[in-house]
Amino acid sequence: MKQTVPLKIKTILIFIIFGLFLIFINTQKIPFFITAVIIVVLSIIFGFIIYFIISKSINVLEESARKVASGNFNIQIETDTKDEFYTIKQSFNRMISGFGTLLRISQLLNKERNLDKLLNLIISETTTIMNADRTTLFLYNKETNELWSYIAQELEIREIRLPVGKGIAGYVAKTGETVNIEDAYSDNRFDREIDRTTGFKTKSILCVPMFNLHKELLGVIQVLNKKEGIFTDYDESLLKFIATQSAIAIENAKLYADLESLLSSLIKTLVATIDARDPVTSGHSERVARYALAIGKKMGLSENELKILEYSALLHDVGKIGIRDEILLKPGLYTPEEYNIVKSHPEITKEILEKVYFTGDQKQIPFIASIHHEKLDGTGYPFGLKSDSIPILARIIAIVDVFDAIISYDRPYKPSKTIEEAIKILREESEHGRFDKEIVDIFIENKLYEIERRVSVRISPELLIEYRTIRPEEWHNIMPIIVRTKDVSGNILFFTTKEPLTVNSFLEVRIYLPEFTINVLAKVIKKQETAQGYEIGINFINLSPEIKKRIQKYLVDLTPIAT
Amino acid sequence: MKQTVPLKIKTILIFIIFGLFLIFINTQKIPFFITAVIIVVLSIIFGFIIYFIISKSINVLEESARKVASGNFNIQIETDTKDEFYTIKQSFNRMISGFGTLLRISQLLNKERNLDKLLNLIISETTTIMNADRTTLFLYNKETNELWSYIAQELEIREIRLPVGKGIAGYVAKTGETVNIEDAYSDNRFDREIDRTTGFKTKSILCVPMFNLHKELLGVIQVLNKKEGIFTDYDESLLKFIATQSAIAIENAKLYADLESLLSSLIKTLVATIDARDPVTSGHSERVARYALAIGKKMGLSENELKILEYSALLHDVGKIGIRDEILLKPGLYTPEEYNIVKSHPEITKEILEKVYFTGDQKQIPFIASIHHEKLDGTGYPFGLKSDSIPILARIIAIVDVFDAIISYDRPYKPSKTIEEAIKILREESEHGRFDKEIVDIFIENKLYEIERRVSVRISPELLIEYRTIRPEEWHNIMPIIVRTKDVSGNILFFTTKEPLTVNSFLEVRIYLPEFTINVLAKVIKKQETAQGYEIGINFINLSPEIKKRIQKYLVDLTPIAT
Repeated sequence: MKQTVPLKIKTILIFIIFGLFLIFINTQKIPFFITAVIIVVLSIIFGFIIYFIISKSINVLEESARKVASGNFNIQIETDTKDEFYTIKQSFNRMISGFGTLLRISQLLNKERNLDKLLNLIISETTTIMNADRTTLFLYNKETNELWSYIAQELEIREIRLPVGKGIAGYVAKTGETVNIEDAYSDNRFDREIDRTTGFKTKSILCVPMFNLHKELLGVIQVLNKKEGIFTDYDESLLKFIATQSAIAIENAKLYADLESLLSSLIKTLVATIDARDPVTSGHSERVARYALAIGKKMGLSENELKILEYSALLHDVGKIGIRDEILLKPGLYTPEEYNIVKSHPEITKEILEKVYFTGDQKQIPFIASIHHEKLDGTGYPFGLKSDSIPILARIIAIVDVFDAIISYDRPYKPSKTIEEAIKILREESEHGRFDKEIVDIFIENKLYEIERRVSVRISPELLIEYRTIRPEEWHNIMPIIVRTKDVSGNILFFTTKEPLTVNSFLEVRIYLPEFTINVLAKVIKKQETAQGYEIGINFINLSPEIKKRIQKYLVDLTPIAT
Repeated sequence: MKQTVPLKIKTILIFIIFGLFLIFINTQKIPFFITAVIIVVLSIIFGFIIYFIISKSINVLEESARKVASGNFNIQIETDTKDEFYTIKQSFNRMISGFGTLLRISQLLNKERNLDKLLNLIISETTTIMNADRTTLFLYNKETNELWSYIAQELEIREIRLPVGKGIAGYVAKTGETVNIEDAYSDNRFDREIDRTTGFKTKSILCVPMFNLHKELLGVIQVLNKKEGIFTDYDESLLKFIATQSAIAIENAKLYADLESLLSSLIKTLVATIDARDPVTSGHSERVARYALAIGKKMGLSENELKILEYSALLHDVGKIGIRDEILLKPGLYTPEEYNIVKSHPEITKEILEKVYFTGDQKQIPFIASIHHEKLDGTGYPFGLKSDSIPILARIIAIVDVFDAIISYDRPYKPSKTIEEAIKILREESEHGRFDKEIVDIFIENKLYEIERRVSVRISPELLIEYRTIRPEEWHNIMPIIVRTKDVSGNILFFTTKEPLTVNSFLEVRIYLPEFTINVLAKVIKKQETAQGYEIGINFINLSPEIKKRIQKYLVDLTPIAT
């Protein structure tokens, strides 16, 4: 404890004055009785002087304590006079600001609902509060029994994976203990490999586990290189507190993210299922949503607007469920009567979506989704809206809906067109004042249509496949949907296409069976140039026997192309 | 400030002893130089004694401050000796426990994600912390510009509605000010009406506003009748702190609840849309989910299990989207080949749902949903599972799925049966070891089938309506789905039923049009006994002109029954 002087000296000086005064009195030959009275009176006076000096500081402390207890963390006690209470005032101020920090973190973390932003926030706040060089947040993956770091600061480490038990963080994850090391390189639990790959030089480490409400391991927070000195007991309990708060906030954000993913995947799945009633339109809604999002992002729409755009685009054709198979799947052209029925689908979309519990700005979704066939010049349907009454989000969807229909809808009486032809049509429509020219320009000039370049190949009147070339870095992100077996022998399909595919490249293939659509991964294993283009052989990856059987059912009547 | 004695007396006593000692020395005729030295030495000794007395307490305070600053709120300073530091120690302890309370509230509130439970938690915690009789939490409804109280304690007030501006809470909502009143009845802003209706006697009131992160009014917290004395400044800042924390937690819980409602309503809407392809099965999935939930709750399943049960039940027939209209809607009996196709729907359900991003225990949903046609004796489809391999949740769905089909599916070649006949079939099936007897018993003995007692009436080959009598307290909860006009003139429908409906009672009516299903509210306006039962006239409430036109299209060929 830091020693201060003033009060001690004051007290001693008072005693000396008191003593000298008494001696002076004593020399005056005053009777003992009076001397005694004087001593008592002076003792009371001097006692009060000392008491006053002390209590002044006590009062300040008390008043502050009262304020802090009621949640006021903006106070600080003045510490300009270096008296006895200097250190306690300092401690007190540290305590208040420490507590303020804890509370601020607690509030800050609980306000952030976006998991990515939350993790970044935890990292930056921890680094500042702990006065350290770097913070790494490891999340625990139960399924692989691994820790993975979400992100690390300053240097570009995107991901570190650690098996539980390996390195300091792995040790903490395994034992649940806090580890505080002055010099990492003298501790044999430390894994020097990470420093070697990142170029960072670890000195001191403080590492604590994070547990959720059910005492399950959620992850580990690791703080590296205390800027002044080493990590203290105080730092340990501070970091433990941060870990507790972070765990609550991470759990909340995760739950929220899971619910959002569930919602989004459910919409996509059900919409894809509805689309897939007509093999020709299969996958249409999700593609429209992806194009629309690409435009919306390029236009700098807010996250909120993008969400409305995405849901409206995904759900725009939901009303087609109200159109009977005999009309929807009619192999020829519609009669005017049938076409009128088909044209009722946006209204049915609106009626269906009005039953959904959308809140806030999302209440626009039924309307936005239902006006994707409106044109700026008022020639669209079902409402014949004109320019200003068609919101931007609906204009975007209208454009990409037509675009995807032109290039994807491959009907015997109306074959699909090339991207170049589709672009030409969009340009014409915008010049005739039917589409928003600005949006069409953004879509075309930024080549946003390329995000979804798919090629359809009709194998037989019943079987249509569609493929998209995927880049090597992308292919592990695309999960084949049915993974029940590792047996891939014989899963080969041949077709002819005009695209010069590369042998050994990966394709995402959609197979439109009359019952439903399947998405599978495939690898190009054969390419041969022919008069029609290229004869391609692809090998499906992880195809289940059931699906194989179903595909083979439709392939059985086809004459084999080649082997 | 409470005055304490010991230190003052100690100091004075020390001075007296010092004084007496000096006088004694003085009487010893010691040379002045030595006396002076003695005085200085004694002053130092006595000064140190006082300093020691003070610093002992200071050390205790300092040590505690350090601990608290690092997040340790379980410490309390001993206050058994009633010295000078007694009050500051007390203040200090109050501060620490105050901190602890604030932090505990912050953590507690952020852990609770269920809005109802959260609001109750805020109310009970606030009442305890504020040492008051009652807490009322008002939430602000922006659309009606009203405050409504969620719940109040002790007495059974379910809901209080206050226009902003009325009463103390209304004043706080309007101005954003904190109001602290010693005696409510002497304040003319106070609305005595509420006390009159609740029988509660309001004395003191402390009322603070709650704002969200965007500074928008979220509600008001009102605390009534401080148990000892009146509400202090300290209470004010404490309640303001609670309001801030509550606002964050309420916003989070609301967002979560909104997302859950969106998810649930979206599933219901899309599933209802898929069901409605076949008018006969319209509404089936939602009814199955409600029956299943009723059984699940009676069986004491966890909230988690109930959620899985609900989603699985709602989604069980999603695979029917994979069955073509020509088979699904076939007016006659199926050929064995067609029946095999229909029997593939649970597998398609599974394949569709496997594409949805379910996490944790919800990963079971695709499986549970797909085995609703399995029987305990292994005679079901598609997998022919036996007893133990069929989980409880799937057994529940299997039973209520059959039950609803028996009483609801009214096909020309296979008319729907009565509830009594359906119960008989369930009993037989369970006795033959096909259904779980325990679950069937729970369903029948608790009359859980009554939660969904609907009656179907076929108006014409094309038009089927279904109605359910609703209790007066229930009818404002059932939102008519299309509310575009207040014009109800002429929205009358007549039909014959065996149920003795009451004139002026409300019905929830589902009209199954070939395109889609609509749910509307109706009021019974006419009843006449006939040979077939009762001829009923109902008046639709808030029916849109479009819907009216659609219904009339189907009614136009019918001979009018009566007027």
